[in-house]
This record gives sequence, C-alpha cells and structure tokens, in this order.
Amino acid sequence: MALFDLPLEQLREYRPDVPEPADFDEFWKSTLAEAGERDLDVRLTPHETDLVTVEVHDLVFAGFGGDPIKAWLVKPKGVEGPLPCVVEYIGYSGGRSFPWAHTTYPAAGWAHLVMDTRGQGYGNWQPGDTGDPYGTTGPTNKGWMTQGLEDPEHYYYRRVFTDAHRAVDVAKSLEGIDPDRIVVAGGSQGGGIAQAVGGLRGDLAGAMIDVPFLTYFRRAVTITDAFPYQEIVEFLSGQRLREDRVFATLDYFDGVNFAARGTVPALYSVGLMDDICPPSTVFAAYNRWQGEKRITVWPWNKHEGGGIHQRGEHLRFLAEAAKGA
Amino acid sequence: MALFDLPLEQLREYRPDVPEPADFDEFWKSTLAEAGERDLDVRLTPHETDLVTVEVHDLVFAGFGGDPIKAWLVKPKGVEGPLPCVVEYIGYSGGRSFPWAHTTYPAAGWAHLVMDTRGQGYGNWQPGDTGDPYGTTGPTNKGWMTQGLEDPEHYYYRRVFTDAHRAVDVAKSLEGIDPDRIVVAGGSQGGGIAQAVGGLRGDLAGAMIDVPFLTYFRRAVTITDAFPYQEIVEFLSGQRLREDRVFATLDYFDGVNFAARGTVPALYSVGLMDDICPPSTVFAAYNRWQGEKRITVWPWNKHEGGGIHQRGEHLRFLAEAAKGA
Amino acid sequence: MALFDLPLEQLREYRPDVPEPADFDEFWKSTLAEAGERDLDVRLTPHETDLVTVEVHDLVFAGFGGDPIKAWLVKPKGVEGPLPCVVEYIGYSGGRSFPWAHTTYPAAGWAHLVMDTRGQGYGNWQPGDTGDPYGTTGPTNKGWMTQGLEDPEHYYYRRVFTDAHRAVDVAKSLEGIDPDRIVVAGGSQGGGIAQAVGGLRGDLAGAMIDVPFLTYFRRAVTITDAFPYQEIVEFLSGQRLREDRVFATLDYFDGVNFAARGTVPALYSVGLMDDICPPSTVFAAYNRWQGEKRITVWPWNKHEGGGIHQRGEHLRFLAEAAKGA
Amino acid sequence: MALFDLPLEQLREYRPDVPEPADFDEFWKSTLAEAGERDLDVRLTPHETDLVTVEVHDLVFAGFGGDPIKAWLVKPKGVEGPLPCVVEYIGYSGGRSFPWAHTTYPAAGWAHLVMDTRGQGYGNWQPGDTGDPYGTTGPTNKGWMTQGLEDPEHYYYRRVFTDAHRAVDVAKSLEGIDPDRIVVAGGSQGGGIAQAVGGLRGDLAGAMIDVPFLTYFRRAVTITDAFPYQEIVEFLSGQRLREDRVFATLDYFDGVNFAARGTVPALYSVGLMDDICPPSTVFAAYNRWQGEKRITVWPWNKHEGGGIHQRGEHLRFLAEAAKGA
Amino acid sequence: MALFDLPLEQLREYRPDVPEPADFDEFWKSTLAEAGERDLDVRLTPHETDLVTVEVHDLVFAGFGGDPIKAWLVKPKGVEGPLPCVVEYIGYSGGRSFPWAHTTYPAAGWAHLVMDTRGQGYGNWQPGDTGDPYGTTGPTNKGWMTQGLEDPEHYYYRRVFTDAHRAVDVAKSLEGIDPDRIVVAGGSQGGGIAQAVGGLRGDLAGAMIDVPFLTYFRRAVTITDAFPYQEIVEFLSGQRLREDRVFATLDYFDGVNFAARGTVPALYSVGLMDDICPPSTVFAAYNRWQGEKRITVWPWNKHEGGGIHQRGEHLRFLAEAAKGA
Amino acid sequence: MALFDLPLEQLREYRPDVPEPADFDEFWKSTLAEAGERDLDVRLTPHETDLVTVEVHDLVFAGFGGDPIKAWLVKPKGVEGPLPCVVEYIGYSGGRSFPWAHTTYPAAGWAHLVMDTRGQGYGNWQPGDTGDPYGTTGPTNKGWMTQGLEDPEHYYYRRVFTDAHRAVDVAKSLEGIDPDRIVVAGGSQGGGIAQAVGGLRGDLAGAMIDVPFLTYFRRAVTITDAFPYQEIVEFLSGQRLREDRVFATLDYFDGVNFAARGTVPALYSVGLMDDICPPSTVFAAYNRWQGEKRITVWPWNKHEGGGIHQRGEHLRFLAEAAKGA
Repeated sequence: MALFDLPLEQLREYRPDVPEPADFDEFWKSTLAEAGERDLDVRLTPHETDLVTVEVHDLVFAGFGGDPIKAWLVKPKGVEGPLPCVVEYIGYSGGRSFPWAHTTYPAAGWAHLVMDTRGQGYGNWQPGDTGDPYGTTGPTNKGWMTQGLEDPEHYYYRRVFTDAHRAVDVAKSLEGIDPDRIVVAGGSQGGGIAQAVGGLRGDLAGAMIDVPFLTYFRRAVTITDAFPYQEIVEFLSGQRLREDRVFATLDYFDGVNFAARGTVPALYSVGLMDDICPPSTVFAAYNRWQGEKRITVWPWNKHEGGGIHQRGEHLRFLAEAAKGA
Repeated sequence: MALFDLPLEQLREYRPDVPEPADFDEFWKSTLAEAGERDLDVRLTPHETDLVTVEVHDLVFAGFGGDPIKAWLVKPKGVEGPLPCVVEYIGYSGGRSFPWAHTTYPAAGWAHLVMDTRGQGYGNWQPGDTGDPYGTTGPTNKGWMTQGLEDPEHYYYRRVFTDAHRAVDVAKSLEGIDPDRIVVAGGSQGGGIAQAVGGLRGDLAGAMIDVPFLTYFRRAVTITDAFPYQEIVEFLSGQRLREDRVFATLDYFDGVNFAARGTVPALYSVGLMDDICPPSTVFAAYNRWQGEKRITVWPWNKHEGGGIHQRGEHLRFLAEAAKGA
Repeated sequence: MALFDLPLEQLREYRPDVPEPADFDEFWKSTLAEAGERDLDVRLTPHETDLVTVEVHDLVFAGFGGDPIKAWLVKPKGVEGPLPCVVEYIGYSGGRSFPWAHTTYPAAGWAHLVMDTRGQGYGNWQPGDTGDPYGTTGPTNKGWMTQGLEDPEHYYYRRVFTDAHRAVDVAKSLEGIDPDRIVVAGGSQGGGIAQAVGGLRGDLAGAMIDVPFLTYFRRAVTITDAFPYQEIVEFLSGQRLREDRVFATLDYFDGVNFAARGTVPALYSVGLMDDICPPSTVFAAYNRWQGEKRITVWPWNKHEGGGIHQRGEHLRFLAEAAKGA
Repeated sequence: MALFDLPLEQLREYRPDVPEPADFDEFWKSTLAEAGERDLDVRLTPHETDLVTVEVHDLVFAGFGGDPIKAWLVKPKGVEGPLPCVVEYIGYSGGRSFPWAHTTYPAAGWAHLVMDTRGQGYGNWQPGDTGDPYGTTGPTNKGWMTQGLEDPEHYYYRRVFTDAHRAVDVAKSLEGIDPDRIVVAGGSQGGGIAQAVGGLRGDLAGAMIDVPFLTYFRRAVTITDAFPYQEIVEFLSGQRLREDRVFATLDYFDGVNFAARGTVPALYSVGLMDDICPPSTVFAAYNRWQGEKRITVWPWNKHEGGGIHQRGEHLRFLAEAAKGA
Repeated sequence: MALFDLPLEQLREYRPDVPEPADFDEFWKSTLAEAGERDLDVRLTPHETDLVTVEVHDLVFAGFGGDPIKAWLVKPKGVEGPLPCVVEYIGYSGGRSFPWAHTTYPAAGWAHLVMDTRGQGYGNWQPGDTGDPYGTTGPTNKGWMTQGLEDPEHYYYRRVFTDAHRAVDVAKSLEGIDPDRIVVAGGSQGGGIAQAVGGLRGDLAGAMIDVPFLTYFRRAVTITDAFPYQEIVEFLSGQRLREDRVFATLDYFDGVNFAARGTVPALYSVGLMDDICPPSTVFAAYNRWQGEKRITVWPWNKHEGGGIHQRGEHLRFLAEAAKGA
Repeated sequence: MALFDLPLEQLREYRPDVPEPADFDEFWKSTLAEAGERDLDVRLTPHETDLVTVEVHDLVFAGFGGDPIKAWLVKPKGVEGPLPCVVEYIGYSGGRSFPWAHTTYPAAGWAHLVMDTRGQGYGNWQPGDTGDPYGTTGPTNKGWMTQGLEDPEHYYYRRVFTDAHRAVDVAKSLEGIDPDRIVVAGGSQGGGIAQAVGGLRGDLAGAMIDVPFLTYFRRAVTITDAFPYQEIVEFLSGQRLREDRVFATLDYFDGVNFAARGTVPALYSVGLMDDICPPSTVFAAYNRWQGEKRITVWPWNKHEGGGIHQRGEHLRFLAEAAKGA
C-alpha cells in the first residue's frame, strides 16, 4: 500500500470539522442512564483450563437491554491485589477467543477482561459466543455496519458501546480488582470501542486505542475501498436515498466526537499505510483527544500496525498506569 | 469457469442421499400452522408511477410472527380477470426493487407479486424495504446464512420460507386474482425459496425455479469457494465445534428435501459452469421433484444461467400454466 | 471505489478544453448525407411472443453503408396513438437482447425501439444479432475501440453513430409513431451513442444519457485502468507511434464535442465512484450541453449508477416529454 | 498452476475422438486452390537498420483474398546459399515485431520470414502492421476467436491459415532461398498455425510446433478458464443457441485434424502446467502426427514452456533439417 | 477453498511411497555428529520487560557451523521446578517475535524456548533477529526453499534442522529445566522442523506438529499453487534441467522420512481445506509416525487450522506430557 | 495503470534532494580498489551451439571477493575487429539466459557480454548460473533487496555493482575487443546496474539505461506497491526499528547518486505508467546525469517501456557510439 493518505506533517495538524449532533451528550447520557437502571447481573463461573499461573472465569453480564454478554476474566495467580485490569474489546467479526489467548496482560500483573462483541464472533482466530437479540426494521447490508443504521436509537453500535461501557462497571465491581486502575483497550473495531468508552468516562486509568475503526466515517467512506467501511458504501449504492439519515446516525457514533471528550491518558497507534483505518481518520480523532496522550506512528505498516510490536508499548503504558494509580 | 462438477450424463441420474430429519414434515406443518393463526393483514396502497398500462400497489402483509413484509403488486390493465399471478422471490441480498422492474409478467397478462426478503435489500439493482426484527442468541458470520443457525426454530430461513408461503396465501386472497393459477418463481436464493414453497404446497399452478440456492448444503460447502455458501464454511472455520448442529439445522431447509415433496409442474434451470449454485446441487433436487417437470440446461453459463434467456422459457411455461388452470 | 476523480463542486464547473477538429461538423454532415442517400429499407416482421399487452416486431433497417441493422420494436397495445417512442442504444458488447427485456417503456405508454450495436452482442444479458461487415487496414486490439482507429472515415463508431442516427429516422417513419416525440436513450456506450445522436439532431423530444462512455477520451485514458477505455491504452503501448493519429481520430467521436451541439432537453446521470466512465468525463460533456438539462448525481455508485434507480428518473422525463410534444 | 490435466503417462497415450468434418480435406483443398489462383505478388523492400550481419527486407505478399500481408525477411550475410528458411507465425494478438527481434535463426544460418497475423498486432512486444479487411455477418465477442464463427467459409482462421500456407509459397519463391528446406514454426497461436500448415503440406523440411493453440477446441473450452479459449465460452454464454454451429465450424480448424495429416518431421513442446493450451489438447494432436516427431515435455512450466529453453531444441532441429535436405 | 485433496477416509489410510535416500540416516547422523563437536555456547542474558510473572532471557547458542542463533527463553516464576520445556520453531518468514508473544506455555507451567529461523524474520507478527551466514553456489529463487538446493550438504534446511536439534540440547542443558520433559512444537514450517527433530531424537516427551510444511515435497508441488511450495515450482520452471537433483536433495529433508522414524508421542493437526500444506501431505507423514499419536482434523479450515483452537489441544497434550515424565 | 506519478512537464524538471552519504565516493573508491587487488582471472571456454554467424564463449571471471561470475560472450564472426562491446546486466531474478538469446547486438557488429547477477537466475526466460556465496548477519525478507541491508559493507548490491564494474574491466581485457568502445546496458535492475557502473567510470563509450530500478529508493517505497521495491516495505513492516539504518545503507546504492556522477553519453528510457520503476524515480536520476544524454519517453507503457521498441533506439545509439570512438 503506497502512502495514499495525507503526509505525516499534515496528519499531525489535521483537525477537520466533523459534524457533532447537538444532542450528542444527551443521547449518550440517556442511553447509559437507561442501561444503568438494570443490574449488571455478573455471573462468574470458574473455567477449568490447563493453565496454572492464571485463574480463568467465564464471565457473563447484563449488557444493553439486559442481554447476556460473555467475557473471559483471566487473572494472574500469586500477584498481590487488588489488581489493575485491562478491559479489552475485539476487532471486527471476532469474539473473546479462548482463555489461553489472553495470558500476556496477566503476565504483566494485570487482570484481563475480554468482552465479546455481540452477534459477532465467527472469526478463525477469535471465535465468540454472544448473540445480539435485536433485528432491524429496514433493509441491511451483510455485516454489522448497517444494522439499524436508520436511526441512532437502533444502531448496532449503540448496543455495543453500552455493553462496553458496562464492562468497565463490571470490572470495577469485581472483587480483587482495583476500580481505580482500569484501562480500556482494543485494536481496529476494538480500538473504536475503547475510544468511545474512553471518551464517555473519566474514571479510567487509561485507554489504549490501536488503529481505531468507527472514526470519521464521512471521510473514511470516500478514501478507501476496504471493508468494513465499504459496507456503508455498498449499502448506499443501493439505498441511495438514505444518505442523509445514514450519516446523521453515524455522527452519534463517530470516534472523533468521542475523542473530543477524552480526558484520561491515552496511547494510540496508527499505520501510515493502513487502508482499513486510514491514518487521517485516526489523527482526526487523536488530535482532538484532550487528555495526556501519545501515538505510535508505524510508517511502513498497514492495518497490522497495531499488532505485536505495539504490544510492547502497551506494557510500558500499563506499567505507568499501574504505578500512577 | 471450467466444468468443475459432475458431467451432464451423471447429473441427469444424480440422486445422492441427503439427510432428512425425521420430523421434517412436522416441523414445517407446525411452523406454518402457527403462522397461519395470524391474519394476513394485507394492506394494499395504490402506488403512483409514470406507468400507464399497469396498476401498481404497495403491498404489505403479515409474514412470520406477524412482521410486516413489503411487496409490489403489479397488474396489467385492460386484461380480463381474474388474473393468474406470479409470486416472485428475490436473489441473495436483493429486495423487491422498483415497480418498473416488474413489467414483463404483466405484459404477459399475469399479475406479479414481488416479495421482499426480510432484512436483505441493499443491492444496487434490487433494493428492498423490509427489516427482520429478530436477533440471534449466538455468534454469526456476516450475511444471512448463519443467522440463528444454532437451531431450526430460529434459523433465518424459517422466517423467510414462512413469509414466502404466506405470500401465496396473500395472492390467493386478492380480488381479481385467480387463486387457482398462482405460480411461484425465483432465481438463486429466490429459486431456493420458490422450491421450498413449491414443495410445501400442492395448490399451485407451477413453480419456476432457476439455478436454486439453499440446496444440498452438505455438498455445496465442499465443492465451491463461492459466496454465499462460503459464509457457512467461514463460520465453521471459527465455530469449529458447531458442525453437527449446523448441518442438523440446515437439513430442515435443504432444497432437496423440499423438492422431494414437490407435486406441481416445475420448470428448472441450471448452468453447468455455475460455481455459486453448482449443477450437482441443482440436479440433486430436480431429480427428486415428483411433479411434472423440465429443466433447461445452459452448458456454457455460470450463475447467470437463469437469466434473460430463461425468461423466454418462463413465458412459455406461464402460457401453459394460464391455460392449464 | 474511493472517490478518485475531482470533487463534486469542481465537477459542476468543469469545462476543460477538448480539441475539436476544424471540420467536425463537415465530417458528420457529409457522413450522414452520404448515408441518407440510401433508403432506410425498413423491414418489420411481427414477432410472436407470449406477451399479450405489447406488440413486438423484429425490425431491420439499412444502417451505414446500407448494412442490415436489427432492432426490436415493442409497442403497447391499447394505448391511443400516435405513440411517442424511445430509441435505445446498448452498452458495450451487448445487443438488443429479447423482446421481453423491453416492457418498461411500453408500460409507460411509449413505443420502444432497441437497436443492435453492429458486430457486438455476445453478452450474457444482452445478446445481439447484427454483424459489422467491415474489416480494418491496420492492426487492432481486441474489442471495438481500436477498429479503424487509423482514420475517422474508417473508425468503427462512424458506422455505429450513423446507424443510430438513422434509427431515429426509422422511428419517425413508422406508422403509429409520433415523429415529434422521439427520445434517444442509453447507458454507458449506449449513453455515448445517445449523446452523439442528441448532439447531431435538433428534432428530438429529448435525450436520456446515462453514465456515458466515448466521452473525453484524452482524459479517460489517463485516469482509469478500466476497460473499455483501456483498450486504447493497450493498443498504444504496442503501437507506440500512432498516438497522434489515434487521438486525432477520436476527437471526431468525442462526446464532449457532440454535447456542445446538443439543444434538445437532456437527462444525464453520473456515478461519482464510476471508474469505467469517470465523472469528470461525464461532466465535461454535460457542462457543455446547450439545451435544457438536468443530471442525477449518484454519489455512492460506480458504473451501475445509471441503473434501475435512474429508470424512475427516465419515466418522469418521458412523462414530461410526452406532454411537452 | 498445480497439475490440473491428465498425468503424463495418460497424456502419452491420449487419442480422443475429435470430430472431423467429412469434407475437411475438400474444404481446405478448395480454399487453397481458390487462393492459389491469385498471384503471390511478393514485394520485397530493403529495410535499413543498424544491423550489419543480416539483411532485412520488408516483405508484403498477397494472402487470402489477395489481401496484403506484411512480413519481415531477415537473412544472414556471408552465409553461402541457397539458404534454408524458417517461416514463423506469431502468438495471439502479436505481430511481426521488429527486424532486430529476429536475429537468432539467421545467426544459425537460416533465413527467417516472420509473418504478421492479419488484424492482430497491438502487443507490447510484437506489434504488427497488417489489417484484416473482413467483417462479420453476426455478433461477436471481443478478440479474434469468434470472428465469422457462424460458418467455416467466413471464420477468421480460414484467412489466417491460408495466409500462412501462402507464406511458405512465398519463401519457396524467393531468390537465394532453398525451396526444399523450409521449416514452419511458431508458439501458441503461432504453433497452431504452424501445425495447420504442417498438416496441409508435405513439402516442408519440418515443423516446430510449440505449445500449440487452436487444438482440440471441444475439450479446451471445458477444462480451462484461460483466454483466448475463454472467448468462445463467453460467446456461447450469450449466444446460447449457436453451440452446434460454433463447434461444427471449429472442427474445420482443429489442430488435431491437421496433425492427423502431418507427414513432415515435427518438433513439439508442451508445458504440463499450461492452462492456456492444456497439455491434453497438445498431446491429442501430437499423438496423431504421422511423420517423424519428438516432443519436449516441460513438467514445471505453464504456457512459457515453449520459450527460450525450447529455442535450443529448435536450433538442434534446424541443424538436422538443414543437413537432412 | 473447496475440498481439493483426497477425502478423509482415504487420507486416514494414505501411505504413499515417498523415496528415501539409502544414506538418509547416515546423512543426518554425520550432520549432527559434526555439529555436535562444537560447544553449544549458550549465552543467557536476562531481558527486562514489563512482564512480572515470567522471567525472560535473550538466549543465543551456537547452531549449525557454530553460527549464533537467537531465541527467547520465557519461564514462569513461582512454579516449582525443574520445569518442563516447550521448544518452538517458527512459521515461514517469521522469527522469534517478542517475549510478550510467548506467555501461554509459561502460564501452563512450562518454560518456553522460541528459536529464530536463521535468515528469516521479516514478518509483521514474528520478526526475527538471526542471520544465515551462508551463500549459495548456484542460482536461486526468492525465499529460502531453493537456497543450496543443488546438494543436500548445502541445502538451507540442513542448517535449520541442525539448529533445531541443538536447541533441544540447549534446553536440556539449562538449569532449572527438566531434560526429560522437552516437547518440540511448531506450525507450518515450524511444524516441519518439529517433525524433523521429533523424528531424529527419541529423548523427547512429545512433539506437537501443526499443519506441517516441508513434507512430501514431490506431491505438494503438483497439487497446490500456493507459496512457499511454489518457490520450488518457479525455480524448476527456469532451472528446468535441475529437476532430478532438486528432488534428490529434497528427499533428505522430507517430513515423511522423518515421521517414519518418530517414536515419541505426537500430536498433529491438519486442515482439510489447507492449500498451503495440503492434507494428503500431512497424512502421508502422520500415518508413518511410529510413536503414540493423535491428529486433530479441522474439516473447515485452511492453513489456519493449526491455530488458536489447536492451542487448547496443545495444553492438554502438555499436561499429559508433564505428568507422564 | 492510470498516470499515477507526476505529469511529464514536472518530470522533466524534477530534481529532488536525495541524501548522499558524505563518504559516498570514498566508499566506492575503496570498494573497487579492494576488488581491484584481485586478478580478473578470466576463463573463456568456447561454447558449442548451432549458431554459425557468431562465436560463443562461456566466460567466468573473478567478481567481488574473487567469486566466480558467469557470463556469455557472443561475438559476430566475419566482422573486422577490434570489436566494440556491449556489457549487459540483467533484470531482477533473471540470469544470463542462453547464448541464442543474445544475437541482436552481434548482428549489429558488436560483441555482447552478458553477466549473471549473482544468486539470482531462477527466471523462466533468463535462467542464470551463478551463486552468491555470502550470507547475512541479520533477518531478511525473501528476495535480494534486503540481503545485508544492515550495513553498506554487506549489502548485496555492493557485490553486484562490483561484479558489474569488473565485467567492464574484463571486456576491456579481451583480445579482439576495442577497450575504448565499451557500452554498458540493461533494463530495470540491469538498468540500475548499468547506471551505477556508468556513474562510476568515465572510460565508457556510453550507457544504455532502460527503466532503471534501484533509483530513488526513498520515494519509490512510498509511491508504489509493486515488487521488488515492496520487499523493502515488507521488511520494514516487521523490522520496524531498522528504518534509519535501512535508508542510510540504501543511499550508498541509490541510482540518483550514481547518475550525478555520470559523464559518458547516456540513453535512458522511461514508461510514464510504470509502477515498478515509477517515472519520477527515473527522471530524478536522468535529470542529474552530467554527460550527453537523451531519454525516450513512452507515455502509454508500464515497465515494458524499455522493451523491444527501445531496442531500436539502442541500435541507433550503438551505431553512433561505434563511430564516435
């Protein structure tokens, strides 16, 4: 992928006008308030594995609408608590995978809560186990990008972001977890979700947001042909008259608007050759983040930019966050 | 596409053992009975267009679960009734499109009822307008093939086939339509739906089933990489332990099992180079059809086999059906 | 297809200098005059189909050089005449297809004359039936874009545009057709042909020009890799020294030069993500059209932009044209 | 390309029944006789180049119908004559290229006559300079495979094979060329042409037939998706009712039928992974060749099998042929 | 990927004749003996990370020819030793990655030694850090498959397998590691290496061999076009006369021949749709393995078959191995 | 390939700042001096072919480090000497091919020395026969671009350029060759090598540099995704921290820096649609060349731009060079 987006110097200063609905805060406030009326209903089931230095629980909690959301909770044994905790969200189409996929943060002394993304989870590497018991009132494209797009109230990510927000509440409620040292994390879709949660709450010890998806939709759909953003373009190519409503809905979910509210310490990453989450969309959000922040720029990477190398940055960030708390 | 499936001579005799659930008939009987308890609730709204030789109505009826299903009803003006009627189902991801896309059967003297496929309808050429207000209890792949696959009761196509079955009831109930001359029709997914309805009811004047999808799933997923069958393979590549349940569910929806019950006159088509709906899957069903039947074999065609050339065969079949009734 | 061409605001004002041969008018005047010396030699054969609300004729007329050009004439029955008539031209590699593919305009009360494009017509969906009895004096690429490119007199489209021009004469000559209400129409190559005829004659009730091909060749070959424009690039990559002659020939056939002469009411369409007929080439022509005009801009569409949605615009345009005459 | 065709042991014995028209010999006899009534009309123009050890002429002769066919004649200087001569035909879409591309056979002491393939010649590497002044009476696909396919009399390759046959007459007529030592040669389409000429004449010193195209059409179109054979499949996918006529025509041009008549020494090559000219089609012809023969089997090669390595085999074959005469 | 290889029932019985060099054992005996003359020269450097429940060392040892080979050694803290140890080899083009990528086996109570593959290691996810200070005496293709292919002594994998064999010696020599409980492991190329080491030594507690590469070369190169096997085909397409020598060399490195010598407990995995390491090549080896064995068959998976799901099988196998010792 | 680089007017003036190491001249001076201490050790073996107007020798000489480098020497017979000589370098992955591939320059009266590129040579069309007996000290990507990239001393092209430089010394040393009329030549990688040699020596009669590779690396890796430049991007995507060193090394091998030193007459070619060696990288070097120069601009060509058409330009250039000397 040749460099197809803005040059790095421009990216560093990039602050486009992204439409923000007048009632953006109200929308999320009432969404979360409504959700908050339900009990978290956390069910923790010890899950036997062949792992010995960690303790695994199958965790189910009541997400948006009280729907059961599955997660793994993996905690290091023999580390003195209360433990700091990473709450992680997953990339598009994946799920919480298996407990043995989540041993790195525990090895760093952190509890690790990995939440399923409702309805998703067919992925080879990250199968999930959580349904999304909501249908749609109108036509959709394949995939999740266009589920309920006709209306912010019914848009798929309203449910997902609410689940994600509550997953932090869950973490805070757990015995042996230090509620003051919760860090949200994720890459791609998971990064978009972490960014949303990071923007919505000020009570986190940090947010690790890698190559975030769900950010500056209006630009993304015009500068890349890559999926999943392309699901929106395909939808509009057939549902040609829904354009205004589609973008009016998306504005409530745009990562730029969440980032503009972010006050906790943030660690971002971006790949300058990333055509799935183009760098200008990432910087549009990053440059708005209000809290302490840094961004790792991977000049020669596509979407894998936020991968195993960045994991080293995570550990450093977590070490600071663990201390800082 | 080179010839990748069985040679034609073998296809003509191809009668593989396709598993049939012991309670297949019971399943569908109770499904339809339950649906039948609800009123069809047909709402016909005259729809103004610039067309003058046809009369167009926006038709909404209560499908599975009473959900509103949209359709177009296009009737020729000045043709003496009661009119015979084609009830058409749509290919994967498409919808009912626009009234002006449905003038051919009316030009042949038939009323034309084109039903949306719930939830689908982003397609460029065939946008739809009907949602599917059901979610899932487990993880899914993108697309509709894996929605509710964990269980025949909740599988997506249970709702669709029920809608389709009721669309025939709707047609029969309409003033000016001859209830004894209803023909179901469709290509690809639409062909699979027409085949299911054709197998479930003996009160039709015919079924036109082009390059049907949703037929012999167990073989299809092993001989082609093409979508949408591939959605199932992808799902199983991640949800590796669900294989038995997946196929146990699909057996309730397999076109071969519907075809084995088909008694009305049928017109099939097949493309010998069709990798989306491979010819052996089509013949596996066709060879089981019990009613009067014929199949148009297009040796040099892929999935487009059931296209504009086949439309000529349709008109001939309809002319016979119109007389025959 | 990400947005790869100029932004919409610039497209709306885009008026590039496209070279126009000094003898452009003379070339076409003499071409048509020479053709006009031959009788149209219209042969109308009633064609039996299973359609009942329309009357179908197989129509053959003498095109360029007196060569037999095939067409379908489909007329609504029971609509009081004389009838207005759409003369339609076909997209690249297709042909007149089958009569049952042409029932929409008749359903709107219009006669529909669909002309084969000589030599073309292998297409799955639109088979044709007309040869092109001319060879070439020099080497060519596969396809029609480079047939006779060495010289405007022998260029393939000189014959095609002449056929198309005469098809209007044919329509005007038919009994029961209102010669004052002829509208030319087409998409892609058909749009390019309709644009040429629309520019060459002032006696039409309108021109419906969808995503036109054959327009601003000099730019098209540098901003897209898509076929058929790419046929010219491939040709020049081997016939490297013919560049000047190639473009000198193409200037006589450039849609921009035809559009600059267009005085009848025109309806255009354009897809902003269309890489086959890039939007700047379409606007380069549209912005020059002198007659009353409007353009439907489909922001999320590629070349399918001029498809089934646009058909609704056609019907509205025709309704106006029918009245206006 | 994995091995997709028959295994080598079976290929060595492969002798399928390929339909041969009853009047095959008569067809070619009368075709050549009719052509033979015209003078060869050889025009040799010295062509100045910067080459010093060879002498180059631009050669034009009257091919089928008397049409001017261009060729290069490249002769070694300082080699005592009369010279043996290779008459070479060119691969699909290419032409005679430039004189400096033809110095190898002259370096081996042979004159080299390279004939344009009429109408073709856009290729990057092998531009041509000869038109084909014949059109068609019916629809065609892009490319040359379907030009005049409706009828053996008008099929494109009737003209090409006649040109090629006459090119040998031309070579034999040239001063300084030994008429008893003419070898025809070519790869791919050129191989198909050399095979046809080799089958039609017994007065050659040999035929070098590399990875021949135009051979066993009926099988080729079912076992590979590759072009140019695919042009026929595409054509039939739209012109579905022409199948019988198409193959009836092709039988007159099938390399297997020519090979069955071949009596001169032949050198073949084949690539076992060649999907453009699949090995079974090559062996179907080779196994029928009646003259002395050998075949170089390149097990790991696709269509490039007949390339630069095979050139070494050519030189050995020519050395024998030169002596043998 | 449709099922393109043998059906599962046949795979279970598949025991093809794979050529084995007469001096296979001698070749490896002398290779290892020669290598064994050098000291292992293990250098362990504590490597600081932000991980707290594991201890990380940068490990360098003298591999083939005494060349420095890098590895990570990751050990669980607080687990009573001596520890069992997994020695892992890496997939094609990857390297040892980062310490934080190797926390799963330590979480299961195992030490984990991850060896670089010399010369490789550009991979996004698994960068390495070890060169291969050997050149070639003949031409090569890109990649490692053809490095030194002219001769078993100089073939690249002679060096790699020797490194891998010695890595086990290294593990056994480490303080705190139980020399009787070493398991070798790897997927793809890593699986091929583990299989070679597993076949060469009887002193292991087990071998975990996922979707092994480097196995039944002679068949692999004919049934798949996928890389890296394709590197060999490409090489032979140009170096056409080296075929015999190439395969004579590869026989010394063929996984089937190593498997035939395997006596330790083995856990295999295979994906039935794996076109990179086709299932018949895997079963050809697996069916020869002499020790206790089991294979996980993933019917719906391609090369990812040996991935995260299989990791669960690993943990079970390791738990048994840990006890068994 | 649409025009993706700068427009031609800008290319003609394009003179970017390309970093030049301070010790660039010193680096090459010492490299060549060190190499020069070894004897050329030319071994000429008459090579029998079936060619009669040329004389072929298999030539081996001591290249960098004294390694044996193979070449063909093809000389015209019967041309009065001493002969001028073209020294040709080969494109990426190819080798010296076969003697019969090198008859054109001899036909023009020139001796032709074609040098293998060490280690390369798997290519279908241009097999080679020379190894590269050097390994690496660090990880690499597949291919040659990243071999030894950690350090200018060990970079692969240091060896290749030295070989190439010495090949000229070899040519000059040969009996019957005129040491004052040596022209270096090559396309793509061969063009990059010829450019380097042309920049390093003032004693040539000319340099023919077609579509040169290895030129302006820093830009090339950001404007094209094509290989081989992409090998560097891939490498950096995994070896993310080596960026500075990588480019610091490449600066010693950048064609722009060699061109800036070029004083002999040069003939360049460039394809304006060349995505493998983008036109701006070619002009960046060409515009710096200090000697007499011209460039053939092929506007409609990709990387094949420097092909058979350009060969005609070569012959003209050589004719001048032959005289000029």
